[in-house]
Amino acid sequence: LNAPQLLVIGGVAAGMSAASRARRLDPELEITVLEKGPQVSYGACGLPYFVAGKIQASELIVHDAEFFREKRGLDVRTGMEAREIEMGRRRVRAVSVETGQEHLFHFDRLVIATGARVAWPAIPGLLQAPGTKPLPHVFPANTFADTTALDAYLRRSGARHAVVLGGGYIGLETADALHDRGLEVTVVQKTDRILRPFDDEITLRVEQALAARGIALRKGAAALAVTESEVISDAGRHPAQIVIVAAGLRPNVDLAEAAGVTLGPTGAIAVDDGMRTNIPSVFAAGDCAESTHLLTRRPVWIPLGTTANKQGRIAGENAAGPGGRARFAGVVGTMVTQLCGLECARTGLSEREAEDGSFRAVSVEIEQYTHAKYLGAGKLYVKLIGEPGSGRLLGAQMAGPSAGKRVDVIATALCARMTVEQLSQLDLSYHPAVAPVWEAVLVGAHELLKKM
Amino acid sequence: LNAPQLLVIGGVAAGMSAASRARRLDPELEITVLEKGPQVSYGACGLPYFVAGKIQASELIVHDAEFFREKRGLDVRTGMEAREIEMGRRRVRAVSVETGQEHLFHFDRLVIATGARVAWPAIPGLLQAPGTKPLPHVFPANTFADTTALDAYLRRSGARHAVVLGGGYIGLETADALHDRGLEVTVVQKTDRILRPFDDEITLRVEQALAARGIALRKGAAALAVTESEVISDAGRHPAQIVIVAAGLRPNVDLAEAAGVTLGPTGAIAVDDGMRTNIPSVFAAGDCAESTHLLTRRPVWIPLGTTANKQGRIAGENAAGPGGRARFAGVVGTMVTQLCGLECARTGLSEREAEDGSFRAVSVEIEQYTHAKYLGAGKLYVKLIGEPGSGRLLGAQMAGPSAGKRVDVIATALCARMTVEQLSQLDLSYHPAVAPVWEAVLVGAHELLKKM
Repeated sequence: LNAPQLLVIGGVAAGMSAASRARRLDPELEITVLEKGPQVSYGACGLPYFVAGKIQASELIVHDAEFFREKRGLDVRTGMEAREIEMGRRRVRAVSVETGQEHLFHFDRLVIATGARVAWPAIPGLLQAPGTKPLPHVFPANTFADTTALDAYLRRSGARHAVVLGGGYIGLETADALHDRGLEVTVVQKTDRILRPFDDEITLRVEQALAARGIALRKGAAALAVTESEVISDAGRHPAQIVIVAAGLRPNVDLAEAAGVTLGPTGAIAVDDGMRTNIPSVFAAGDCAESTHLLTRRPVWIPLGTTANKQGRIAGENAAGPGGRARFAGVVGTMVTQLCGLECARTGLSEREAEDGSFRAVSVEIEQYTHAKYLGAGKLYVKLIGEPGSGRLLGAQMAGPSAGKRVDVIATALCARMTVEQLSQLDLSYHPAVAPVWEAVLVGAHELLKKM
Repeated sequence: LNAPQLLVIGGVAAGMSAASRARRLDPELEITVLEKGPQVSYGACGLPYFVAGKIQASELIVHDAEFFREKRGLDVRTGMEAREIEMGRRRVRAVSVETGQEHLFHFDRLVIATGARVAWPAIPGLLQAPGTKPLPHVFPANTFADTTALDAYLRRSGARHAVVLGGGYIGLETADALHDRGLEVTVVQKTDRILRPFDDEITLRVEQALAARGIALRKGAAALAVTESEVISDAGRHPAQIVIVAAGLRPNVDLAEAAGVTLGPTGAIAVDDGMRTNIPSVFAAGDCAESTHLLTRRPVWIPLGTTANKQGRIAGENAAGPGGRARFAGVVGTMVTQLCGLECARTGLSEREAEDGSFRAVSVEIEQYTHAKYLGAGKLYVKLIGEPGSGRLLGAQMAGPSAGKRVDVIATALCARMTVEQLSQLDLSYHPAVAPVWEAVLVGAHELLKKM
């Protein structure tokens, strides 16, 4: 009698969380993880620090494959690319990246954690030939392998100018990192808005920070062609011995879709709150899967490491045995980025998102010291968004020192479906070294109440 | 026809908040504030930084009396000590501290914001004579006037050794400040526990921090006598050219009690959620008043600047007119202190408080990096307390970098009456510069769930 086989496709955040959780709950299960890259379990969000030359790539590796094999008893296969899920035969066909040899992996239960990839824009000069690999000076910037290759190229090429295609947070963090590394950087952004999850009050501050640091931003500039030495956009010619492609992410769902797994309205894999797909014993988690937004109750696709780890944990628990009843509570869209030293955070709905949805929204803006001015505190900008009538808190956007963790109070309040009135009364911490008597979110809540 | 008279006794946090709020709501009201000290509206919690010599006393003054007179139209009387509330005649008898002259102030509505005072222990040698002023080298350490006098004495006396009587947060912060100023400091604590709002896991860390810095702590040591050069306790003789009295705070309720205002079980003034006392049109707010604890639903007395400001705002709104319907939501016991560079924070019930109350309590302890280790993050210690059966979150205690603001997530969760399960699923912010993928409170919540 064989132990049940749990197969996990993808070994970064969600995949390794799922495998580890399943192992903890069932020591007998046979668990195999297929990862096409050279590394499992690395901190992808830290890649810009490696690009900037501030840390070693190895510092991003939480645990290596050896650790998972020896300490957790997981059969981890790096350099093993899944090519097809043969759902009827309950097996996955995979190929060794190194040798090209084909392998078959049986499963009783499957966790799909194939992540996301950079969307490849149709710009001449990015690829060696249509449908093939990027040219040697063109890099996506979201995996360990891509970034290691970029680093090696930076070392040997002596490139002095870079163009980043895309003004989302990955593009901007990479631009910031390349600037830290000493390159002249231009960000080319197709639309007239950068950092879409943020409202204009925040993106304006980011644009000022980019300008102050000397990073050029060309908004509303469609890239037309890429050569070995420049990017040509409808806004001009931008010198570039290196081109970074960061024009958005797409969920990696090809394998799943081809095997009959249902996708949701966002294009990512549709899952229930137990991370179950439409196919029995097949789960999905992480950047390839949807989440439920707790404010809109609609499916959203917000690829983030922290959500990936949580979903992976739920998928692993439910995949460990038929009795698994773990449920993923959903997300409220909490997100942080740090650009040119400016910390930006958001949670809930932006004012634009609220208006685009079915919410009436009002907002206020305030600035408040993060703690006692006499201890050298800086000011934090806070925009709070609420729904008049219902009194409900809808979201917050912050920029400045400590924005990243300060937004957690709002995220918690949103998860609890608090009103702005309730927010205004929270018993938050106070001490000259950590907060003003009237914490920024309390001041904002009082101001917002006047409009509700 | 005269405008109604609002009289406020006490002009620090609650008093000035009440007066300012009432003024904003009713520009016609005649508002008088009586403050016995030389300054209104100062940040008392920052006094240790002044004692340490890190800031000027003037930096603690948020606004001076002139500001409130001219910009807010408040009749602010500093150096004016209220002596009696003549409730039947709706007036307060007060005395000028400088001239000794008596003044009478009529009121239609009254806000009592008389604050708290240092409890004076019955130790021979503290006072010039029984019932009189402290000896010249003996100082309480909680008002602007006390601390300015202490500073002047430090400058002229050349004192090298100090003893602090009392190991609460005010005593310990003052000890830390005196050490920063170059004195040899001994803290003499009567019982065997310091920092009572914290559980032993935290106080042990504080004791280690004190020892590492070279501040002597004598626990379980009753002070027996004080001389000009030493404090004699049952643990020995402690050199002291300066003695700080910080053996606990008491609400200043003498005036109110003598006028028939009802006190609550804590000894502070009993108020409803509109900050109303038992006497019509008489309100109380700040360190002289009780709050309702949101977990126990019982009255508590937790004197803190942030609560004082909030209560003052409510009292001011309701005192501004008979239609005032502002309500104070209550507290969950959030508190922060910073000692010898160690940030300590707590909220909700400590394990001891939970057990002393009617709660069954279990707890877990974890340590987690505050953000990415490769960016030089330190570790935060977190103890989480929950109630098995109900699944309810009861409280948290934290020590380490960012404890002060990290505790706010728990405070918010407690205000929302969250379960530990709900806490474990919060969509908190993540970025290598601000948080690990698994935030400390999430790790703690997962651990605590195993015991629930």
